[in-house]
Amino acid sequence: MVQKVKLSTIADSLGLSTATVSLALRDSPLVADATRDRIKEQARALGYIYNRRAASLRTSRSGIIGVVVHDIMNPFYAEILRAIESELDRNRQTFILSNHYDSVEKQRNFIETLLQLGGDGVIMSPAIGTPKDDILLAEDNNMPAILIARTVDDLDVPIFRGDDAYGIALATNHLIGLGHRVIAMVGGTDQTSTGRHRYEGYVAALEKANIKVDSNLRIPGPRTKQAGFEAAVNFLSLPQKPTAAVCWNDLVAIGLMNGIARAGLIPGKDVSVTGYDDLEEASIATPSLTTVWNGQSEVGRMAARALLDKLNGSSEADGLHLIRPEMRIRQSTTPLKP
Amino acid sequence: MVQKVKLSTIADSLGLSTATVSLALRDSPLVADATRDRIKEQARALGYIYNRRAASLRTSRSGIIGVVVHDIMNPFYAEILRAIESELDRNRQTFILSNHYDSVEKQRNFIETLLQLGGDGVIMSPAIGTPKDDILLAEDNNMPAILIARTVDDLDVPIFRGDDAYGIALATNHLIGLGHRVIAMVGGTDQTSTGRHRYEGYVAALEKANIKVDSNLRIPGPRTKQAGFEAAVNFLSLPQKPTAAVCWNDLVAIGLMNGIARAGLIPGKDVSVTGYDDLEEASIATPSLTTVWNGQSEVGRMAARALLDKLNGSSEADGLHLIRPEMRIRQSTTPLKP
Repeated sequence: MVQKVKLSTIADSLGLSTATVSLALRDSPLVADATRDRIKEQARALGYIYNRRAASLRTSRSGIIGVVVHDIMNPFYAEILRAIESELDRNRQTFILSNHYDSVEKQRNFIETLLQLGGDGVIMSPAIGTPKDDILLAEDNNMPAILIARTVDDLDVPIFRGDDAYGIALATNHLIGLGHRVIAMVGGTDQTSTGRHRYEGYVAALEKANIKVDSNLRIPGPRTKQAGFEAAVNFLSLPQKPTAAVCWNDLVAIGLMNGIARAGLIPGKDVSVTGYDDLEEASIATPSLTTVWNGQSEVGRMAARALLDKLNGSSEADGLHLIRPEMRIRQSTTPLKP
Repeated sequence: MVQKVKLSTIADSLGLSTATVSLALRDSPLVADATRDRIKEQARALGYIYNRRAASLRTSRSGIIGVVVHDIMNPFYAEILRAIESELDRNRQTFILSNHYDSVEKQRNFIETLLQLGGDGVIMSPAIGTPKDDILLAEDNNMPAILIARTVDDLDVPIFRGDDAYGIALATNHLIGLGHRVIAMVGGTDQTSTGRHRYEGYVAALEKANIKVDSNLRIPGPRTKQAGFEAAVNFLSLPQKPTAAVCWNDLVAIGLMNGIARAGLIPGKDVSVTGYDDLEEASIATPSLTTVWNGQSEVGRMAARALLDKLNGSSEADGLHLIRPEMRIRQSTTPLKP
């Protein structure tokens, strides 16, 4: 069998990073022309052949799988990770973790480290602004990538996430059904696909019910409990006097409810609040949180399965897999007071 | 320079695990006599010399540091990990994580994987029942270990944790000072050093105040928000009618407060509750939680520093370092109603 020339061999021989070599071979503008030419020459000299299909047939495995997400301490990711871990454990794979905190550089460093360790594959919730090339860097080096929770466009890798626009419409319709007409949306950012899709779903649901969309009813930004807590002041001082809030996730909703309570109002009575995700703590919050189940355990389990299947030569899971969210109605939402 | 014979060399040559070799060389009863003899013979044949001091002088580094704790999704560990990560990032070390969920076997697998990857060091909060040998397995292979949050006896490695007995006494004394006399202790387990030390500190504080200790006022077990929530039923049905609860940690306290609220009582008015750790969410809970700051960020930062110092040849940090907890008084505790 012919010894394959790897990107890392070219990189090492030139004293460059694997990422630079990978970018140069795909003519990325991020690499200076002179460097690119030098890399291509060296690749030819070493007999490097780019052949992804051949590369995907691995002969040996390290048993190591990397997982990189925005923040593993966020319970949304924690619940996905638990499901991934349980599936990988059953298959005797070692699972190593990292946060990228939405730094593309930190994410790329992790992928490079994983390549150096001979990692078998990577499961990632891509950082804001992740270039397609960073995911292909893994793939080109025989390390299949699986995306979770967030999308990067134009990639034929498996992607597992909830149907955000559909899910947020469930929450918005629930509030409309209770008689609410002035409904704020709290949290999320347009920089992530989940932020965009949930805002679009909220807008679409309002329009479908012939409720005029007021962009000033959106309080973008919060993604944590602390930020949701702090947003209560803005929410309660909106001149439109919203009677309900659709929150971007459960953390923001629980924080907002705490902030509303701190201001002397009763969440679930004076103001209706919905969350998103159905974290474990949603059902024990005070009041218990009406929210949208987002299938964290399904996303984790399916992503791990897809990766294990890929390592066995299957590519059936390539493409987008949408998990269908479900409404969970509890005590934090009530009919509009007459 | 002489090429050092490593434990893994012996292990590989015999088709055994590094752990087995390490255990055999220290005459552990966990290894069968015949296996032990075979290992010792092979070690002699290969010229293995056990010399920890020499072993501690490393010549090259992978830049990889492992961290293994009970559950990284627990915010207590999450806050420690954030501090470790920030310190290691600044020093351009890669940080890989794992949970052991109190499985000694899972923890040992992680240490072995880390050894295979050429890890520089390991920071661990040891699993319940961790044998000293499992930590020495890392040390013997030139991979220094640092312990956090929990103690394993008779080890001369650096250990960083809060002073649990002192901290819980602060909380208990605070409640006694508010006039409470029937004070329950909710959560924690005798299987961990933190569980034992906090219960002992609570008992000592009661005795010092001449309050009779009633072991039926202890509700052991809960360590999570969910378990604290469920414990509210037991707590509220205690025949001694406690007016206050000292909780083992903030998660249990927040869960208990939610459970008390679900039962129609007002935590912080009808029942006083204290937490332990001062997690970020303690201050935004409803009511905001009176608790004991447990120095998570200090523990993480100091543990990472100690490891980096060790890698540079210093052993000044060996031994126990106790962080002194501080009281944080908020709305969840009030004077006993007359």
